[in-house]
Amino acid sequence: MLHDSEGLEILVEDDCVALLGEATLGRIAVTIGAVPAIFPVNYCLVDGTVVFRTAEGTKLHHATTGAVVAFEVDHVEEETHEGWSVLVVGVARAVTDPVAVDAALERLPHPWAPGDRHHVVAIAPEFVSGRRIPAAG
Amino acid sequence: MLHDSEGLEILVEDDCVALLGEATLGRIAVTIGAVPAIFPVNYCLVDGTVVFRTAEGTKLHHATTGAVVAFEVDHVEEETHEGWSVLVVGVARAVTDPVAVDAALERLPHPWAPGDRHHVVAIAPEFVSGRRIPAAG
Repeated sequence: MLHDSEGLEILVEDDCVALLGEATLGRIAVTIGAVPAIFPVNYCLVDGTVVFRTAEGTKLHHATTGAVVAFEVDHVEEETHEGWSVLVVGVARAVTDPVAVDAALERLPHPWAPGDRHHVVAIAPEFVSGRRIPAAG
Repeated sequence: MLHDSEGLEILVEDDCVALLGEATLGRIAVTIGAVPAIFPVNYCLVDGTVVFRTAEGTKLHHATTGAVVAFEVDHVEEETHEGWSVLVVGVARAVTDPVAVDAALERLPHPWAPGDRHHVVAIAPEFVSGRRIPAAG
């Protein structure tokens, strides 16, 4: 079993993708005017690609269009601190094919906020990595 | 009540700091060799500063030393998608004063992974912002 520099068990890519496919809430790291930011987003996995909604004119929409972004999903038990985290790095692109947009919007959870949030952004993973966090000893 | 470009309610700074003080798990966004990454970390708030453990020689330790980082805490109900998120941006610095290190280590949760994780990194917030996520309508 491989461990990273933090002493955490390294997950194989198949396990990472399986975990990505089970969760629905992730966090995306972007840069807005040279300042880093993290936003929670509801997402789903479509053919190995992370997709989520944005609204036109929003900071998130601008920051994710054509940018290299980090996307992270984790699950940590509050009591034991046992859990896992998966990190995806890739270029975020607007999905423009209407069939693909409709397919993604159907699968994505209802948007949180009011307003037209009919834009779909996809992150095609270039790197996928994951770690399993053992229970606190 | 103010709303952001996503239509989400903007939290005042006092509310953001109160929420930061209640949670224990956050995510930090850093850049490692020009590639963005996000890691979950257990943290606590000490005198308005976010502090967490790292181990020397780790990617996280190097990436957070003297860097401008984003740190995010959120809570989203799985059923309703109702919740909040708070974002902190600031310079991460190693805490070197032994008294401050001991005080932080005492308050921080037990480390996840084996090994010496006796270094403490502090993020002094330069920007704090937060949003309340309404229940899906």
